[in-house]
Amino acid sequence: MNGKLDDKPAIKPEETLDPEDWDELRALGHRMVDDMLAYLESLRERPVWQPLPDAVTEALQTPIPRQPQGAQAAYEDFQQYVLPYPTGNIHPRFWGWVMGTGTPFAALTEMLAATVNSNMAGGHHAPNRVEAQVVAWLRSLLGFPDDASGLLVSGASMANLIALTVARNAKAPFDVREHGLPGGKHRMTLYASKETHSSVQKAAEVLGLGKTALRLVDVGEDFAIDMDKLELTIKTDIAMGYQPFCVVGNAGTVNTGAVDDLQALADLCRRYDLWLHIDGAFGALAALAPRDRHQIAGIEQADSLGFDLHKWLYMPFEAGCVLVRHRDEHRRTFALTPDYLAHGERGIAGRFDWFSDYDVQLSRGFRALKVWMSIKAEGIDRFGRLIQQNIDQARYLGRLVEQTPQLELLAPVTLNVVCFRFNPGGISEFSLNRLNEKLLYDLQEQGIAAPSSTLINGEFALRCAITNHRSRRSDFDFLVQQVLIRGGRLAQTITQEWAAVK
Amino acid sequence: MNGKLDDKPAIKPEETLDPEDWDELRALGHRMVDDMLAYLESLRERPVWQPLPDAVTEALQTPIPRQPQGAQAAYEDFQQYVLPYPTGNIHPRFWGWVMGTGTPFAALTEMLAATVNSNMAGGHHAPNRVEAQVVAWLRSLLGFPDDASGLLVSGASMANLIALTVARNAKAPFDVREHGLPGGKHRMTLYASKETHSSVQKAAEVLGLGKTALRLVDVGEDFAIDMDKLELTIKTDIAMGYQPFCVVGNAGTVNTGAVDDLQALADLCRRYDLWLHIDGAFGALAALAPRDRHQIAGIEQADSLGFDLHKWLYMPFEAGCVLVRHRDEHRRTFALTPDYLAHGERGIAGRFDWFSDYDVQLSRGFRALKVWMSIKAEGIDRFGRLIQQNIDQARYLGRLVEQTPQLELLAPVTLNVVCFRFNPGGISEFSLNRLNEKLLYDLQEQGIAAPSSTLINGEFALRCAITNHRSRRSDFDFLVQQVLIRGGRLAQTITQEWAAVK
Repeated sequence: MNGKLDDKPAIKPEETLDPEDWDELRALGHRMVDDMLAYLESLRERPVWQPLPDAVTEALQTPIPRQPQGAQAAYEDFQQYVLPYPTGNIHPRFWGWVMGTGTPFAALTEMLAATVNSNMAGGHHAPNRVEAQVVAWLRSLLGFPDDASGLLVSGASMANLIALTVARNAKAPFDVREHGLPGGKHRMTLYASKETHSSVQKAAEVLGLGKTALRLVDVGEDFAIDMDKLELTIKTDIAMGYQPFCVVGNAGTVNTGAVDDLQALADLCRRYDLWLHIDGAFGALAALAPRDRHQIAGIEQADSLGFDLHKWLYMPFEAGCVLVRHRDEHRRTFALTPDYLAHGERGIAGRFDWFSDYDVQLSRGFRALKVWMSIKAEGIDRFGRLIQQNIDQARYLGRLVEQTPQLELLAPVTLNVVCFRFNPGGISEFSLNRLNEKLLYDLQEQGIAAPSSTLINGEFALRCAITNHRSRRSDFDFLVQQVLIRGGRLAQTITQEWAAVK
Repeated sequence: MNGKLDDKPAIKPEETLDPEDWDELRALGHRMVDDMLAYLESLRERPVWQPLPDAVTEALQTPIPRQPQGAQAAYEDFQQYVLPYPTGNIHPRFWGWVMGTGTPFAALTEMLAATVNSNMAGGHHAPNRVEAQVVAWLRSLLGFPDDASGLLVSGASMANLIALTVARNAKAPFDVREHGLPGGKHRMTLYASKETHSSVQKAAEVLGLGKTALRLVDVGEDFAIDMDKLELTIKTDIAMGYQPFCVVGNAGTVNTGAVDDLQALADLCRRYDLWLHIDGAFGALAALAPRDRHQIAGIEQADSLGFDLHKWLYMPFEAGCVLVRHRDEHRRTFALTPDYLAHGERGIAGRFDWFSDYDVQLSRGFRALKVWMSIKAEGIDRFGRLIQQNIDQARYLGRLVEQTPQLELLAPVTLNVVCFRFNPGGISEFSLNRLNEKLLYDLQEQGIAAPSSTLINGEFALRCAITNHRSRRSDFDFLVQQVLIRGGRLAQTITQEWAAVK
């Protein structure tokens, strides 16, 4: 027996997904590089966004192709149906929601990551060490201790979910992991301001705590949590027999960029033995901004911290990070090692800590590479300057708004978020909301600029969250100019409509 | 006021992360394409895996670089420290755990996805429609109805978590989302075989149900769930006052690739009004295998199904999928639309369904592109042939093992998993386990082949899970040959050690 079966010759030769002609794929790869860089280089000449033509919508509804059309034709479909119709967050004048821009270099590194295609669940290989290094770098930037645990995740929503799972399990007076939540009079409660991101509510719901376990506390005029009301709410809950276990602080709220008093939150959490989680989705990286890092002072005292690298580190999706001060609690929440995952002493599964022991995910992609290579290529100080530049741009836009009579600033500019509206005077609140909504659609649909919107005390706001390394001050000049022109036109229409009704 | 501030000239010109010299980056991009394709083309000549030299480990522990080293130098660091030391799942003789291989074409498409860098949370743009199309394709392949919901996720762990959250909320006799789990006598329980993947337990723990709420039921000799014992367990729980809500069926268990009787599970779930979730992490895609799709018959009756595309569709990490038959229940579990996410009627946020209303994640990356372009390029039938090829290879290896006197097959070969050990006779059970563990390390550390391991009824098994489009039958011949040679050597050492002790 030499390890061969007699029936071998009868079996057909094996197929593979490697190309028959490597040179042909190489040429296609070069073409893709050229096209993508040309596309990014010429972004300014294109609209920020444009709607899908019906023909494209239809082409994206055809049934699954059974037969091959080849790599080249698949690429041409991408060029025809996808490339002209992105979300738009790569464009210099996109400031909607909070989305990073991506970079040309990071886009190239994604090809490298997918080539190596390592599984970051754990084990003994270099990609794992790259993620460990990136986490160590981020830990040092955010002032977390060297023995804190951390990992890259899909984004701040997952970071919040993971951190709150650890908080729940660490603070419960019973073994939640083994026996589940007991409910009833042992109900666990957590606290955050009304301006807190919806992902915190989603996490509370997924974790089985329920929406009502999340006590949403009022904010002051600065949109930061009202510390007195927070403490009163906690005291009342304790008196009622609830089990407060966690406060979620905001380093940059989604609506206005407000920062809670993180020092005060840390003090309060110590006094009441509560877990302090900070949602710093974008705001945490203000830690890099030379002139504004003081605004998030206290962040280093959190028990856990979630933030994104695909927002204010300008990385392409997806890359978020969660840091946990208490490594043991983190591990105790997620480690689970069945026979087929035995880590072993030697071989591929051996030597290093497994990330999957700290994660909901088991298989994990090589998100770390783009971060690692980008920080090496640019140096972290450059990211700090860019983050500062975005904050300065937000202040610049804020001042433009304040100095322009027909514009109204709806919230203070703390970090990088500017909420404002067009208000030429003599228009009712209701019509102002309609007017600004139409103005938002107009700006987006004409491909001029992409703010998103929110409601600030019931007022419809054009909202710019600036996490864009391509924006220039002149882009904000242009925005203001267009808001005035287009807002003025829309106001006329509305006044005429109103006159017609009368 | 023309939208410009007077102090503008005093401000320094803006920085950006776009390259100063686009041609230089273009040249680097070409070099990367050439290097990556050459690397993949020559995989066979390299070891499956090799350990990290100390110098590399040290280089991956340096502090964060403050100053730029430039794109080229960052790439050279990648070449020196990362590229030679991957997990190894790209290699033709890697069959450890269950990991896909990736393809050269899909690696290129990742660069395109990161260039477009769209946010798949939702809204009106082509990338969203690409994901919708991919999900529709997968739905049709798996026999799910057209109105079933679905989305791409980071992997099967997240797919299981999402599906079980929907199951919990849909089947609870109270509003879990609002009020949380009540615990106590209303305790909700779910059911799965002892061979079920650990991610199901992890999901039960995260969801606040607790490990003990997951009733693990015995399997038969085929490693599929024992239907009689399952029904008895459910009946007993009902009699005790528990609230059974879900059964998790396996389409391909991680240890042996066993498939539960999915038809019988569907019948039972209907009778007891339970949610049937199927974990088909790799096995679901046996639906594409022309001669083996019958093995997972019944999968189309599940209430929800989770599976990976980065396993048996050979996609690079990350790409999993969850399908849910009941779109409304799915949406009711995750939809949450605060002011700053208002979907609107027009503009970027308008027109189409938002994926984030069905997901834990809000920001979501463009995972769909690699799947979309790969299926277009190759045609889905080709993936079906390759999946069939892997099953046939598993049977080939199984027969090799059975026909070789010194090898022992430890579990039936159902799909693509082969568990076996080297057993030359005359060695105790304890020593056999030690021997095969050493043999596993030897195969991995010498770069020969990468099975992983598991315990089958306490016996240490070399475990090959074949989801590799690069493997050839000759690779399995080589594996068996090397197991015999190296196992023989190790057996001698062990016998000598034993003699020395005596």
